[in-house]
Amino acid sequence: MNPNSSKLLSDAVDAFTSLPGIGKKTALRLAMHLLNQDKFYTQRISEALLNMRTNIRRCKKCNNISDEDTCSICSSPSRKNSVLCIVESIRDVIAIEDTQQYNGRYHVLGGLISPLEGIGPEDLNLHSIKERISSEDIQEIIMALNPTIDGDTTIFYLSRLLKDTEVKITLLSRGVSFGGELEYTDELTLGRSILARVPYTIPD
Amino acid sequence: MNPNSSKLLSDAVDAFTSLPGIGKKTALRLAMHLLNQDKFYTQRISEALLNMRTNIRRCKKCNNISDEDTCSICSSPSRKNSVLCIVESIRDVIAIEDTQQYNGRYHVLGGLISPLEGIGPEDLNLHSIKERISSEDIQEIIMALNPTIDGDTTIFYLSRLLKDTEVKITLLSRGVSFGGELEYTDELTLGRSILARVPYTIPD
Repeated sequence: MNPNSSKLLSDAVDAFTSLPGIGKKTALRLAMHLLNQDKFYTQRISEALLNMRTNIRRCKKCNNISDEDTCSICSSPSRKNSVLCIVESIRDVIAIEDTQQYNGRYHVLGGLISPLEGIGPEDLNLHSIKERISSEDIQEIIMALNPTIDGDTTIFYLSRLLKDTEVKITLLSRGVSFGGELEYTDELTLGRSILARVPYTIPD
Repeated sequence: MNPNSSKLLSDAVDAFTSLPGIGKKTALRLAMHLLNQDKFYTQRISEALLNMRTNIRRCKKCNNISDEDTCSICSSPSRKNSVLCIVESIRDVIAIEDTQQYNGRYHVLGGLISPLEGIGPEDLNLHSIKERISSEDIQEIIMALNPTIDGDTTIFYLSRLLKDTEVKITLLSRGVSFGGELEYTDELTLGRSILARVPYTIPD
């Protein structure tokens, strides 16, 4: 982009370039696309982004993003109260929801305990879990945290925190991916999935 | 994206997805990026896009995009008046400006003559060229149009239109790319560049 050309255009290109993964060429292509479309198209995009950023809230109960005080998952009467899935971030809620295999509630930590990055339990949304267990009559807690050191640290911390409750703590199963190739599976995963092998059941 | 989740978020994701080359996963990543940043960041992006789309104009003289009535290239006193470069679109102006090899003026057609797509000379910004040649004392016209059938048709039409003027018409040189490999050059280009071979001059 030559500085000689339009400042309005280069401001728009800079706006796109400031987004992650969008380079100069793509930004210019996107800006030209806006110029080739009706004025209301840009207005709609512009308003949708601003509207989201300004009006989105955190659910009071689970810390998920929400349009209201309580998110649609927490306020849904058709979801089980007895299971609580603890996740790191909103992205994980979306990923698990997309599987359509889970019908309980969530609790979004907003991060993981990470001594290296100086993130301690007090920085996360951990405080209300114990209170939720008793007030919502939760029977099982699924620790759906990333299989990393920070994830394991957080699971350990939480398991200590919940030691004196009667809640059952479960983990996501770990092992080789469906459709993955053994040859390309990392050694740690492959090694552990041999140790944690499960009996084969003949399909009916 | 589950429909169960935030409408504000899914509107923003839809806004990103409506842009060319941005899929659902990228759109979600971009929306989450906005949520993780300060509110003013989204406001700045949103305003830059809307501002560009609302306030950008076409230069009265050359049809390039412009912040004012006349674009910065047309109004620059340091550029040659005697050479006029005819291009299809604003992108081509940007591409040529980026080479820093051209110091004349431009004329943006806003398209190419295309009988197949029903685009005729009357749909393009051709009318003012003849008038510009006399009023601006233009000596040379560079036809910097895409090397396609539509480009060649447009060049042919323009050369007929300008037959009775004394202006010199030139074309971009065509041939194998710098740094390209002969093996992967298309037959037509390679064949023509053999026919249009140029004498070798020993560098000093």
